[in-house]
Amino acid sequence: MLLLQCMKELENKIIKEGKILEGDILRIDNFLNHQIDTKFLDEIGKEFYRLFKDCKPEKILTIEASGIAIACATARYFDYIPVVFGKKNMALNLAGETYVASVISYTRNATYNIRVAKDYLRSGDRVLILDDFLANGEAIRGLIDICNEAECIVVGCGAVVSKSYQSGEKRIKDLGYDVKALARIKSLKDGVIEFEEE
Amino acid sequence: MLLLQCMKELENKIIKEGKILEGDILRIDNFLNHQIDTKFLDEIGKEFYRLFKDCKPEKILTIEASGIAIACATARYFDYIPVVFGKKNMALNLAGETYVASVISYTRNATYNIRVAKDYLRSGDRVLILDDFLANGEAIRGLIDICNEAECIVVGCGAVVSKSYQSGEKRIKDLGYDVKALARIKSLKDGVIEFEEE
Repeated sequence: MLLLQCMKELENKIIKEGKILEGDILRIDNFLNHQIDTKFLDEIGKEFYRLFKDCKPEKILTIEASGIAIACATARYFDYIPVVFGKKNMALNLAGETYVASVISYTRNATYNIRVAKDYLRSGDRVLILDDFLANGEAIRGLIDICNEAECIVVGCGAVVSKSYQSGEKRIKDLGYDVKALARIKSLKDGVIEFEEE
Repeated sequence: MLLLQCMKELENKIIKEGKILEGDILRIDNFLNHQIDTKFLDEIGKEFYRLFKDCKPEKILTIEASGIAIACATARYFDYIPVVFGKKNMALNLAGETYVASVISYTRNATYNIRVAKDYLRSGDRVLILDDFLANGEAIRGLIDICNEAECIVVGCGAVVSKSYQSGEKRIKDLGYDVKALARIKSLKDGVIEFEEE
């Protein structure tokens, strides 16, 4: 029930406040990606907790920048487990030893590296991966690669919004991981947002 | 009393977990800038609330990436006011109209632009500016410039750590703004961290 309520609220916010731009891009800058509705952010955190509490994560891994807010809001519900965020523009001379994954950005049409310092992922860590969007799955796949290199256990992957008509969700599931999304978009065709039915 | 306790805990964490790198750079990646101690983050938020509650901010403005966690943790105590984060690498075709400030990065020895979409700062908004570090004051000065361009009222500026031996704190104060820091570092000379006395 709670799940449906939260998703409904998220769907309503996406419809009311989201903007569809050319190139099949959905912007939710008004409450998550530039301005943050901090009350609603707490609801997102609570919902991820509900979805993943049985996985018993010990750490949340995300990627800068928007993922940080989501991960921190969720960590509070998991009794304040640590958050680690992958860096896109890490000053290498400052980093120490890092894990690296190369990722293609869908919105920017460019390739970039995600880096995580080796100090913050330990062999055997139970890691929950969270991000804002899941489209082609590149960012989450990159974070999974890093976890595998660090010999962490990925206990689940969550996205606030999955564009389920793209390949990402299936791709991550096919790799054998549990994927959950708070809203799943079936189509953005002709500027109309269609959600998957439950 | 609470102030002293929080600052003491922050100072202890900086001494215990901070790393001093060449070029006078202090890294607190272990609990704030890469891995986040989410329990302590709440304490930071609570402390900023205590310091700025009389200023009655309606919005918190910060800058990606680390600032996001700090701003969101603080916003909760202000009854969930919105957070807006300045973007360093905004895809221009996606942004709409933006305010821009050019900023020199101390740690990266480079100039970059901070952008905030005009939609998220309105004339008359009472804005609290928060960031992780205050060194030469460039980032906070850039955010102030953006607020001025948007005709917002900057009600205060807060940093988790101020390197008070650098020019930033004085610079922002000289511009006429209230500046508060949770820890103030007097010197990093010879790898020894010295804090300002109360």
